[in-house]
Amino acid sequence: MTKGHETRDAILDIALAKASQVGLGALSIGELAKEAGMSKSGLFAHFESKENLQLEVMKSAAQRFIEQIVTPALRSPRGEPRVRALFEGWFRWAKDAKLPGGCLFIAAATELDDQPGPLRDYLVSSQRDWLATFAHAAKIAVDEKHFRADLDADKFARRVYSIFLAYHHFARLLRMRDAETQARDEFESLLAESRV
Amino acid sequence: MTKGHETRDAILDIALAKASQVGLGALSIGELAKEAGMSKSGLFAHFESKENLQLEVMKSAAQRFIEQIVTPALRSPRGEPRVRALFEGWFRWAKDAKLPGGCLFIAAATELDDQPGPLRDYLVSSQRDWLATFAHAAKIAVDEKHFRADLDADKFARRVYSIFLAYHHFARLLRMRDAETQARDEFESLLAESRV
Repeated sequence: MTKGHETRDAILDIALAKASQVGLGALSIGELAKEAGMSKSGLFAHFESKENLQLEVMKSAAQRFIEQIVTPALRSPRGEPRVRALFEGWFRWAKDAKLPGGCLFIAAATELDDQPGPLRDYLVSSQRDWLATFAHAAKIAVDEKHFRADLDADKFARRVYSIFLAYHHFARLLRMRDAETQARDEFESLLAESRV
Repeated sequence: MTKGHETRDAILDIALAKASQVGLGALSIGELAKEAGMSKSGLFAHFESKENLQLEVMKSAAQRFIEQIVTPALRSPRGEPRVRALFEGWFRWAKDAKLPGGCLFIAAATELDDQPGPLRDYLVSSQRDWLATFAHAAKIAVDEKHFRADLDADKFARRVYSIFLAYHHFARLLRMRDAETQARDEFESLLAESRV
């Protein structure tokens, strides 16, 4: 890895942590430059524009999510164990030390839903990928006869997603101590309903 | 109503619509003044600071929510009909013409979860009120013997909330056409599970 890449990755790490807390829109190139110990023009040389910086932050989050959460889960045995591994990964993600403000994608969702453009498009496509990954794991669980043959895998994926959105809201905003326990209980009920 | 109050309410309406789209943090006193056809100092005279403007916008949203959604629902018959009316009201709220960017509280949740202060405190307390209102309606449905005696009303309220968070996410960000149908199906399943 070249020195330029290292610097770029270091800036992205700082920006990612910041964006998880204050949102992508509130990222400031000036403040980031200060935190990274660089000049503003030096930071511009790496990212060209604030819009591009925001997009690179989101891409780096998506890459991290795939490496840390999706890929390891896909190594779990096919069927319910893999579905569980994806769900467990989500909690790890929400507690990732690189994301002190929680899931960047959930924060970006309400920030970007009314802002057409490449940033919103990228978020939508990565969200669709994630739902599809979850639905695909549920379909395999049907093939493995862990789940009912008539299970609607897309609906299953969306229900798991709703459990996670609620967990994020209740844990992060309302600081409910039992948010994770309740999310796990709901997931277990959903699995119980889905089994053969 | 005095002229000063009318002007203030008109500014709050513009700010509310804006905040639902871009977030409370991105509200700009300069831009608002332009849209309201006022001077920046005129707008400052009404709100004193950006922080205060943000708080007033949230308070005005909460007041509108109570008037338009909660109060009418509390006039519905006790029990399941009232629970239904609260749920229906939520969809009306999400489609309120005064909130072109959807529910302000959901947008504010991820924006403010890491920002301690009066704005976050106000949001948390209004969210807790709303969950308590929903839980109370569920408890009454237990008393009326519409719902099971062993129903956990707080958990019920949180499950309805999670259905709504998912609806907001799938409809607004992912533009899924069946987001509302799916939310209604999930609510009906939850009611079916909850009945005596």
